[in-house]
Amino acid sequence: MTSASSQIPASTRATVRADGRAPDQLRPISITRGWSNQAEGSALIEFGNTRVLCTASLTTGVPRWLKGEGKGWVTAEYAMLPRATNTRSDRESVKGRIGGRTHEISRLIGRSLRSIIDTRALGENTIVLDCDVLQADGGTRTAAITGAYVALAEAIRYAKEHGIIAQSVQPLTDTVAAVSVGIIDGVPMLDLPYVEDVRAETDMNVVVTGSGSFVEVQGTAEGAPFDRAELDALLDLALLGTGQLAQIQRDTLGGSAGA
Amino acid sequence: MTSASSQIPASTRATVRADGRAPDQLRPISITRGWSNQAEGSALIEFGNTRVLCTASLTTGVPRWLKGEGKGWVTAEYAMLPRATNTRSDRESVKGRIGGRTHEISRLIGRSLRSIIDTRALGENTIVLDCDVLQADGGTRTAAITGAYVALAEAIRYAKEHGIIAQSVQPLTDTVAAVSVGIIDGVPMLDLPYVEDVRAETDMNVVVTGSGSFVEVQGTAEGAPFDRAELDALLDLALLGTGQLAQIQRDTLGGSAGA
Amino acid sequence: MTSASSQIPASTRATVRADGRAPDQLRPISITRGWSNQAEGSALIEFGNTRVLCTASLTTGVPRWLKGEGKGWVTAEYAMLPRATNTRSDRESVKGRIGGRTHEISRLIGRSLRSIIDTRALGENTIVLDCDVLQADGGTRTAAITGAYVALAEAIRYAKEHGIIAQSVQPLTDTVAAVSVGIIDGVPMLDLPYVEDVRAETDMNVVVTGSGSFVEVQGTAEGAPFDRAELDALLDLALLGTGQLAQIQRDTLGGSAGA
Amino acid sequence: MTSASSQIPASTRATVRADGRAPDQLRPISITRGWSNQAEGSALIEFGNTRVLCTASLTTGVPRWLKGEGKGWVTAEYAMLPRATNTRSDRESVKGRIGGRTHEISRLIGRSLRSIIDTRALGENTIVLDCDVLQADGGTRTAAITGAYVALAEAIRYAKEHGIIAQSVQPLTDTVAAVSVGIIDGVPMLDLPYVEDVRAETDMNVVVTGSGSFVEVQGTAEGAPFDRAELDALLDLALLGTGQLAQIQRDTLGGSAGA
Amino acid sequence: MTSASSQIPASTRATVRADGRAPDQLRPISITRGWSNQAEGSALIEFGNTRVLCTASLTTGVPRWLKGEGKGWVTAEYAMLPRATNTRSDRESVKGRIGGRTHEISRLIGRSLRSIIDTRALGENTIVLDCDVLQADGGTRTAAITGAYVALAEAIRYAKEHGIIAQSVQPLTDTVAAVSVGIIDGVPMLDLPYVEDVRAETDMNVVVTGSGSFVEVQGTAEGAPFDRAELDALLDLALLGTGQLAQIQRDTLGGSAGA
Amino acid sequence: MTSASSQIPASTRATVRADGRAPDQLRPISITRGWSNQAEGSALIEFGNTRVLCTASLTTGVPRWLKGEGKGWVTAEYAMLPRATNTRSDRESVKGRIGGRTHEISRLIGRSLRSIIDTRALGENTIVLDCDVLQADGGTRTAAITGAYVALAEAIRYAKEHGIIAQSVQPLTDTVAAVSVGIIDGVPMLDLPYVEDVRAETDMNVVVTGSGSFVEVQGTAEGAPFDRAELDALLDLALLGTGQLAQIQRDTLGGSAGA
Repeated sequence: MTSASSQIPASTRATVRADGRAPDQLRPISITRGWSNQAEGSALIEFGNTRVLCTASLTTGVPRWLKGEGKGWVTAEYAMLPRATNTRSDRESVKGRIGGRTHEISRLIGRSLRSIIDTRALGENTIVLDCDVLQADGGTRTAAITGAYVALAEAIRYAKEHGIIAQSVQPLTDTVAAVSVGIIDGVPMLDLPYVEDVRAETDMNVVVTGSGSFVEVQGTAEGAPFDRAELDALLDLALLGTGQLAQIQRDTLGGSAGA
Repeated sequence: MTSASSQIPASTRATVRADGRAPDQLRPISITRGWSNQAEGSALIEFGNTRVLCTASLTTGVPRWLKGEGKGWVTAEYAMLPRATNTRSDRESVKGRIGGRTHEISRLIGRSLRSIIDTRALGENTIVLDCDVLQADGGTRTAAITGAYVALAEAIRYAKEHGIIAQSVQPLTDTVAAVSVGIIDGVPMLDLPYVEDVRAETDMNVVVTGSGSFVEVQGTAEGAPFDRAELDALLDLALLGTGQLAQIQRDTLGGSAGA
Repeated sequence: MTSASSQIPASTRATVRADGRAPDQLRPISITRGWSNQAEGSALIEFGNTRVLCTASLTTGVPRWLKGEGKGWVTAEYAMLPRATNTRSDRESVKGRIGGRTHEISRLIGRSLRSIIDTRALGENTIVLDCDVLQADGGTRTAAITGAYVALAEAIRYAKEHGIIAQSVQPLTDTVAAVSVGIIDGVPMLDLPYVEDVRAETDMNVVVTGSGSFVEVQGTAEGAPFDRAELDALLDLALLGTGQLAQIQRDTLGGSAGA
Repeated sequence: MTSASSQIPASTRATVRADGRAPDQLRPISITRGWSNQAEGSALIEFGNTRVLCTASLTTGVPRWLKGEGKGWVTAEYAMLPRATNTRSDRESVKGRIGGRTHEISRLIGRSLRSIIDTRALGENTIVLDCDVLQADGGTRTAAITGAYVALAEAIRYAKEHGIIAQSVQPLTDTVAAVSVGIIDGVPMLDLPYVEDVRAETDMNVVVTGSGSFVEVQGTAEGAPFDRAELDALLDLALLGTGQLAQIQRDTLGGSAGA
Repeated sequence: MTSASSQIPASTRATVRADGRAPDQLRPISITRGWSNQAEGSALIEFGNTRVLCTASLTTGVPRWLKGEGKGWVTAEYAMLPRATNTRSDRESVKGRIGGRTHEISRLIGRSLRSIIDTRALGENTIVLDCDVLQADGGTRTAAITGAYVALAEAIRYAKEHGIIAQSVQPLTDTVAAVSVGIIDGVPMLDLPYVEDVRAETDMNVVVTGSGSFVEVQGTAEGAPFDRAELDALLDLALLGTGQLAQIQRDTLGGSAGA
Repeated sequence: MTSASSQIPASTRATVRADGRAPDQLRPISITRGWSNQAEGSALIEFGNTRVLCTASLTTGVPRWLKGEGKGWVTAEYAMLPRATNTRSDRESVKGRIGGRTHEISRLIGRSLRSIIDTRALGENTIVLDCDVLQADGGTRTAAITGAYVALAEAIRYAKEHGIIAQSVQPLTDTVAAVSVGIIDGVPMLDLPYVEDVRAETDMNVVVTGSGSFVEVQGTAEGAPFDRAELDALLDLALLGTGQLAQIQRDTLGGSAGA
């Protein structure tokens, strides 16, 4: 296992949050690459107390509907352990159906990762990203995307080392990371833990490439509708946070991310 | 049944789309209020060839987890008839499970309508909005939100007329409408039919109140990631379109929308 | 869209029903052919306030168990929108299972339509008939069968026009229509709306070909068991009603029904 | 266990069937009352090689929707063991859903038995009839109805003996039995085994009370539609057969059936 | 049908059980071979009031994952009729899922029967053993294993008679039978009926081959944990009981068991 | 988090296993108590490369069927992450049903933990033990039981500290641990990793209390049936291994286990 973690320095802004952070400061971030000895790629990622285990499973071949197109496939599944949260939830396997929230997040992670994959360079191979939340304290979907990128990069490195993909091709076109932002008591804040998330008037998850372009912008007025200026402030914060996450991803992967 | 429809006049911009519209022009919009004689509120809404039947079912009482709080509840379910689309899809009832897309859109509609509801004014009553797509040609979720608002307003009028809600209270705090926007061949366009939707590099669904604030902004890079300028252009178009939809909603409801 | 509708003239019998009809009179019948622009065949059928959207989806090929036999396949699925009825029902997709009533009616529609199809003339093609009840006021299954015939005939015309079936062969061996009959306060009555249906001592659904032969006779004693004379009176009424429905089907299809 | 069985004497009609019976002759019928020592009522019924185990489970109280009405409830569930038939079928419990045919037959049995129950005399008690086909050779639903009556009568006798129902009231208003009839090679025949059932042009299941009134008439044209004369011939045969079955039921129950 | 049954003589030990048996005495055992005329092999087995119908369904070919290995497959499914027990249970098909207990016992039966099968001698054929409990009074899983062996042996005899397996090969390597044992009020007892089963401090199901080797030992401390001496006493009783069951199996099969 | 781990010293027996262990030697064992900051009790347990996260969720109240009896309830759920194993498995939540193996192990864990709980001392409180396998290399069910005990003990300590249970009562009557044993190439071996597990002729999971009594003995002949001497050798090994595990549990819990 290779581990990188980072306590992002606080800005000089005055407002102090419950955990002592400035509004534009990420929680302590930690990524342990290679946490699993079974998967082709894996990462245990922590955004503060949020812990997500991301594994990348590589198999040759593609789903039936893609066969013969010379393109690969990347998909994702997100889930939470029943006691990841403060009170226990019933297992979706026991309920016999997957909830809407789980579906929605799985789809978001899959789209986010596909945005930086050249499926033709991947060849007819499939990578499934499993993001299992072991402990939840807000921001699980953004931690999952950020960690899944590391697991994906590791799986592609594995594929090259084992001759499944040629050394000369590069299926990764960029890196990708995500962060939550929100407005609390009128103040835009970065990387919300659970206690802030439930109080946010507006909550936004933003997925951004290493080169600073948007992949997903999902903003929701939980309380009052928001105006254009608030939207702009949130996007600024999100670009700041994802820029720092991209640097941590690069450190974790030894400078080889997206390369 | 009361019907309002509108062929929005084309702007003077030159680019012409497959259906002859300017980039900033909505498709012909039609709302038939009171289409159902069973539901407390209903509307058949058409965005071009997209047709969605929206019904609002009002019942007294609230779900168990809300009991005794003095607040009402509004929720939504979205579905498509199997042959609403160009090729037939299996029914979700036959498959025995609801797909991720259906879940995601149902949740979006519910959140959008709750954003303009004062649940305390609604009292301990529940309104379920069913949005069933009878024919699909792109923009089904935005048509559903726009039509569901009309059904909701009608159900609230019904509740007042039948003494379920006092005449003096107003559970509706505003109107709400939604539209899709996207970038096609580099040009930002309003209200995408299916043929444009599949070609869009970036696709965004925007939910806006009658007073012009954002309720939801959901942008996805289907092709290439998008930059801040593109995001801004799309938001401009969305505000233009939802402003026109709000006017049609008011016309349909006889000036009583949100009042 | 081509629309045919008919207010069947009242007979001279004296007993007047809640809606003013004579015991042997159908409700106003309306069939709008081509209501959907997506399906190969479609009809919106109305028996009074009962409204069913019937679509016929044509695909080449047959289910695995029929392959290589040189025969086609016709099947049907029936469903109700959650608020088609006076009080909202949970969606079967949400419940994760199809109810017995839905199954039973789907099977009845499929058998009825297959009774007038020459599957060998149809060739190895499949037609799925979807009958979705948009508004329910009794007789939904009989309206569904009657409307599904029109959608089926239109799909076969489509198949001929597009060279999927040769112009010279005729897969339709006859027309088929259905009507409900019942005994209310001792009086046999034709085409029961919901208020009559719940009061009927005996309730019968009868499916009859254009040439007047029986395809299905399903009689149920809801209250008291019935005797042979009552059974005979109900069958007489059913033959009268289905004869009139067959004429409306022919009018809708421009004289080409079953030809 | 008390057992009654009967080899119905052949009529003098000439046509001989594969098993040597005349067209208007039942298969050998056997009813073993009290086959189970667990249920309040039970019967193992055989129509030739068709064997159905019917149990009646009596519980005090009624489903929630019936509470406080002073009425009882009778319902039924039908199922087949996986190897009741010539080739093994997957279990519905393994498939996770009940098929349409199972639903349809369960509902038919329930309606049939309810037709001869005075639910007010039954009091707020529930009887569930389970009809499990141990071996299938045609006519399983008609054997199930006929056997379920015996189990039901036994459960009511149990209820009286244990003071759950007063001795003076009689919830059974009549007996009920069922038989299949069909037209094979143009000849109407009674009580079809599997080999005849698959060849029948028209197939009808008829449920008749001990006093000779119809409870259900379910006729289906499997091959060619049928005319009024054929329908009449089938009804005659069904009345003949159910009359004989009613006698066997009375013999099994020791003259106390419906009394 | 060929039937063998046996009232095992009581030992001279003094303790008398509720049903009069000595602690080391089996209940009356009855096996009716060929109870079904549909399955290739079948047996109705009774351990006292426990009655299980076991059928063996033979099909050529194996599941996909075994194809081309030259080996056969034997598997089992266990189920209970809803009123096999003293109070009615909901059907697993109605609940839409199979319970843990059912799964567990199905797997146990399958493993037990596979332990005495030479899958290579069986060739690429599949045998499914269905064990359906018609009446339950404790020991249903051990009765099922013991009866399934008889059905399996009969199916293999059928396979040989029909040339599906060569006469010269012998897929059965031994016989197999099972019995429950338990400690009640400190006394080890053999073959527990329901009333004893619920009182047992320790409950063990033991599966033993005809030659006296263990296939499965499943001991559970229901009340107090058990020590080595108690375990030994229970294993002694189980070997005694399964030895007697093996003899009854041989008698039923006419001396041909495992031969 | 408090962590205890142990490299058990090798015995002097000569046979060396693939990982260098003696036949009677456990893998390196590690228990990290308090791994989760959400659950009332938790432990991450490792048996070599097998890693199971065990959480204990404590809630006041009991399931409906236990209400008013003055007793508590302990139950367990076991699951595996999709990529815990060498190749990815589909999620049970996606398949919509729980497999037989999962059910079986969940039930085993629940029974094992209940064997050392005095439910009356626990009062009307419920503890749910979730055992999620993060990485699997054989022995997952035995690691789960051993770790679940630590999580359970911690939850009970929490209950006392928070006044949910009185300090004076002790719901834990003993400790409990489990280990797998098996015969490989004729040699009885302790604590099998995956590579040994698939080769074992006989495989046994044994659950033993801290005082050395058996709670569960589950032996299965995977290859050849086993005799009494082999069974005895396996039980000896299991008692040795669970004795060492009990000591590690006590060390982890700071001498307070079962006290």
